[in-house]
Amino acid sequence: MSLLVVGSIAYDTIETPAARRENVLGGSAPFFAYAAGFFCPVQMVGVVGADWLPEYTEMFQKHDVDITGIEIVPDGKTFRWSGKYHDNMNDRDTLETHLNVLGTFQPKLPENFRRAQFVFLANCAPATCLAALDQLQGADLVVADTMDLWINTTRHDLDTLMKKIDGLVINDSEAKMLTGEINTVSAARKVLTMGPKFVIVKKGEHGAMFVSEYEMYIVPAFPVENVIDPTGAGDSFAGGMMGYIASQQGSLDDETIKNALVYGTIVASFGIEGFSFDRYKEIDRSHIEERRETFRSMTAF
Amino acid sequence: MSLLVVGSIAYDTIETPAARRENVLGGSAPFFAYAAGFFCPVQMVGVVGADWLPEYTEMFQKHDVDITGIEIVPDGKTFRWSGKYHDNMNDRDTLETHLNVLGTFQPKLPENFRRAQFVFLANCAPATCLAALDQLQGADLVVADTMDLWINTTRHDLDTLMKKIDGLVINDSEAKMLTGEINTVSAARKVLTMGPKFVIVKKGEHGAMFVSEYEMYIVPAFPVENVIDPTGAGDSFAGGMMGYIASQQGSLDDETIKNALVYGTIVASFGIEGFSFDRYKEIDRSHIEERRETFRSMTAF
Repeated sequence: MSLLVVGSIAYDTIETPAARRENVLGGSAPFFAYAAGFFCPVQMVGVVGADWLPEYTEMFQKHDVDITGIEIVPDGKTFRWSGKYHDNMNDRDTLETHLNVLGTFQPKLPENFRRAQFVFLANCAPATCLAALDQLQGADLVVADTMDLWINTTRHDLDTLMKKIDGLVINDSEAKMLTGEINTVSAARKVLTMGPKFVIVKKGEHGAMFVSEYEMYIVPAFPVENVIDPTGAGDSFAGGMMGYIASQQGSLDDETIKNALVYGTIVASFGIEGFSFDRYKEIDRSHIEERRETFRSMTAF
Repeated sequence: MSLLVVGSIAYDTIETPAARRENVLGGSAPFFAYAAGFFCPVQMVGVVGADWLPEYTEMFQKHDVDITGIEIVPDGKTFRWSGKYHDNMNDRDTLETHLNVLGTFQPKLPENFRRAQFVFLANCAPATCLAALDQLQGADLVVADTMDLWINTTRHDLDTLMKKIDGLVINDSEAKMLTGEINTVSAARKVLTMGPKFVIVKKGEHGAMFVSEYEMYIVPAFPVENVIDPTGAGDSFAGGMMGYIASQQGSLDDETIKNALVYGTIVASFGIEGFSFDRYKEIDRSHIEERRETFRSMTAF
């Protein structure tokens, strides 16, 4: 069992109504990888600059995440993003984006990464995802995330990518943008006509939904009262979900899918309780299992 | 077992992106009563004008709803509301409101209604709710709904009302408005300091949440692809929920509460599949049970 993620690695500067953090680790691949690492070994591919800190290498190594696929550009700077959250902690404004080394990122998968069974193409340019796909040797399950930027600017590449993946993970509003549908379920069904065999619609604080031709599963979000920083919640959700599926040898039976949605939800609920990886560093699988039981008692009927 | 509802009765004119209906039955009490009527006998109190139609009398009588508590004002007109839904079928603009006979409504409970065990004060002026409460003889469970209008214009009455009820049903955004909190869970907890022993937060297409001092239960919405008319969904949800609780002799154990949330969700999911009561008239309890099983298979883990 091996789970590979290809995606962005960032230093984020985050403002919330309560606090501000500068240059903390973020990006789709780190959040996904750490969340998945609670369930299975993970291989991470991305690019950083000379400003990559040894403490992050150590953090991932301790957590069973193989980062030999991270390319370090000696004379480059890591991708930087800064954003400011509104009072509701859901909406945010992007203040600055500096692509830096991410601007010319060409994923190069180490030899032993190419045989990954399970693959997640975290939110990066569809062309980058396609370049990574070309290096794979017969993965069992390939899932990709996408966002408004690629829907609006690289639609042709995205259409090509969608025909080559098994599943798409996408935000509610972006699913509607991608399909032109105004109803979430209708949007999900239309995505299925574009290539993916299943789609997972992320609804932020309102949970998530899995839709395939004959199935639909829904999970509410775990109610978190003290949201500190929602950055990376969607990537963490995907990581928990894919990590659990990989730990079940890629089974896509109904019980596995529902549990995968729940584990994604639970892992993400921890992540938003702190900035960057602060909260994750305090927890282990037992905390996840305990909260999952609480969640079950809140929802089972 | 008897469940009493006091609330508005309306003739609605509704525009959606797809269609328009004029002067169809609406209002908080009818939607609540019909939804609850799938589970237990219901007593309805409200006021209408001389334009009340015999077909509605017949509709409720067939459905075990006692409408002897509806006052018919011979020279009056029934309350009228008109609204237009946005493309997303969630947001809407109120176009016109004519209070008519509702403007001077003083609820008069028939003698045999005053001993109701279970009471729902559907969305009407807090002073009207208080006038109804004064006529009750020791109800076991009193739950009220409220809305932005009363929060903004009759806050003192609302505060008095909240100290006299067991539970409050309220929209997500209105719970935040009422409490000044920006997080749904925090808002729900703050409502508990205002009087009610429990609060049910309605989140529309995102489900609902029950919060008491030591408990929290959540239910996502049932995914409806073809939403025809969401008018009354919140009242129908409350009706299904309270109807089920009444059918369980008012038990508030965890299983009953969770099932009540689910039944409310399922009943409301049918209601929005048609204008006014169109869809309800096509279904019976067996349709509700069938969809409940579907919902369970979508969510149970």
